[in-house]
Amino acid sequence: MKTKLRVLKVGGNLIDDPKKLKSFLNAFAKLPQPKILVHGGGKIATETSKKLGIESRLIDGRRITSAEELQVITMVYAGLINKNMVASLQALACDAIGLSGADGNTILATIRPKKPIDFGLVGDVEAINSALIQKLLKADLTPVFCAVSHNNKGQLLNTNADSVASEIAIAMSFFYEVELFYCFEKQGVLENVEDENAVIATIDTAKYETLKAAGTIKGGMLPKVQNCFHALNNNVSKVIIGGPEVLNETHKQFTTLKL
Amino acid sequence: MKTKLRVLKVGGNLIDDPKKLKSFLNAFAKLPQPKILVHGGGKIATETSKKLGIESRLIDGRRITSAEELQVITMVYAGLINKNMVASLQALACDAIGLSGADGNTILATIRPKKPIDFGLVGDVEAINSALIQKLLKADLTPVFCAVSHNNKGQLLNTNADSVASEIAIAMSFFYEVELFYCFEKQGVLENVEDENAVIATIDTAKYETLKAAGTIKGGMLPKVQNCFHALNNNVSKVIIGGPEVLNETHKQFTTLKL
Repeated sequence: MKTKLRVLKVGGNLIDDPKKLKSFLNAFAKLPQPKILVHGGGKIATETSKKLGIESRLIDGRRITSAEELQVITMVYAGLINKNMVASLQALACDAIGLSGADGNTILATIRPKKPIDFGLVGDVEAINSALIQKLLKADLTPVFCAVSHNNKGQLLNTNADSVASEIAIAMSFFYEVELFYCFEKQGVLENVEDENAVIATIDTAKYETLKAAGTIKGGMLPKVQNCFHALNNNVSKVIIGGPEVLNETHKQFTTLKL
Repeated sequence: MKTKLRVLKVGGNLIDDPKKLKSFLNAFAKLPQPKILVHGGGKIATETSKKLGIESRLIDGRRITSAEELQVITMVYAGLINKNMVASLQALACDAIGLSGADGNTILATIRPKKPIDFGLVGDVEAINSALIQKLLKADLTPVFCAVSHNNKGQLLNTNADSVASEIAIAMSFFYEVELFYCFEKQGVLENVEDENAVIATIDTAKYETLKAAGTIKGGMLPKVQNCFHALNNNVSKVIIGGPEVLNETHKQFTTLKL
């Protein structure tokens, strides 16, 4: 039987709230080994770009990563957020090691095709160095990934953190029984956005189609849920979307994804 | 007999010049394993602070690290510089892994005493996690350290890159025969700052005192040379100060430190 490995992705809004982030990291530090953390960016990159006079360019409402913005993303995600999280976890006796995808060639990506939209320096995950990640886990380290990858040609790339989490979960399922958690500011996928307690307990593929058709699942939640099914279709044993409280074993309010 | 390990520190002015940095990284990538790179910061942190409206505070001509400046240092050193170096080395088939001192608790430091001068969030190295660094080297990885450490209480600390390099060299000498190289924009310690070719071939402790008394070694070169002797006094087998060309075995112009 394979050892259980938890892969947790912590999202933007939790990172922006120092109190919530502290509480999340406390709970994460207490989880048994092995475990992996993947973090998003939050608003700090946007704010830093603004302060530095870098204008965000959007096409069809989607942000384009210019060379200047990639610099800010690298500073904020791989530097500021990643190293402060690692230092916080170290203080909680969790032996964290912060990594970008360039480090140890852990996340290899290719630049997204320039058609139909040229997203700039955005990468789609091509390969995860699962052998190295396993070595780090076996050395009792807890990898903490930011969503910056590289193309192995010297170029760092901005990468979707949800996809990084699911691709790592999938790759590690060769060695481990992997549980994937998407933690954000809500308690799960909501039946009604106005009601924080209207958490949908289970979403399977049939229910997903119904919820999508009804417009209950829309916008940013669509690719997140697709990432969940992608993981379940590729040997990840359990996928959950929930709040930071989901790390507490007695907490029962969250969304479980099923095929 | 112990395996040879090279620890190289690359300094500020080399980092600021993309062409020189590229040439240095090319030469570094070609060095045989095992090897470790430690990098300083250069002017990018100062420029970024200025752009963000953070004023540098100096006491007796020495920079104080405020909480705001530490954020910039963490962004620029641990993020921008470190990850771009790692991505460049990966493209050169050098399996680099970028680390701050918080990562894997590799560099533990204590905040510098507040008397006589309160330097703010500056740390002095207390311990190097040589066992973990050895594990990484044995996994054929090349650690690339920025000069940001932590105190294991959740606080990142700005740390002198020359000291980080000498302390890592000293700690690793338990396992390896360590050679320490300080690479900067000059060819070595100069007899005469006006003459780039007036490189002093060898400096021993007696010569150091003479050069210091004559004012030939002064300013920032004083602590650098002291770091060199500190390393030699603590089992590091060879210490060299030179230009990036020092990595080329046929290059003969550099300064060797001797006890």
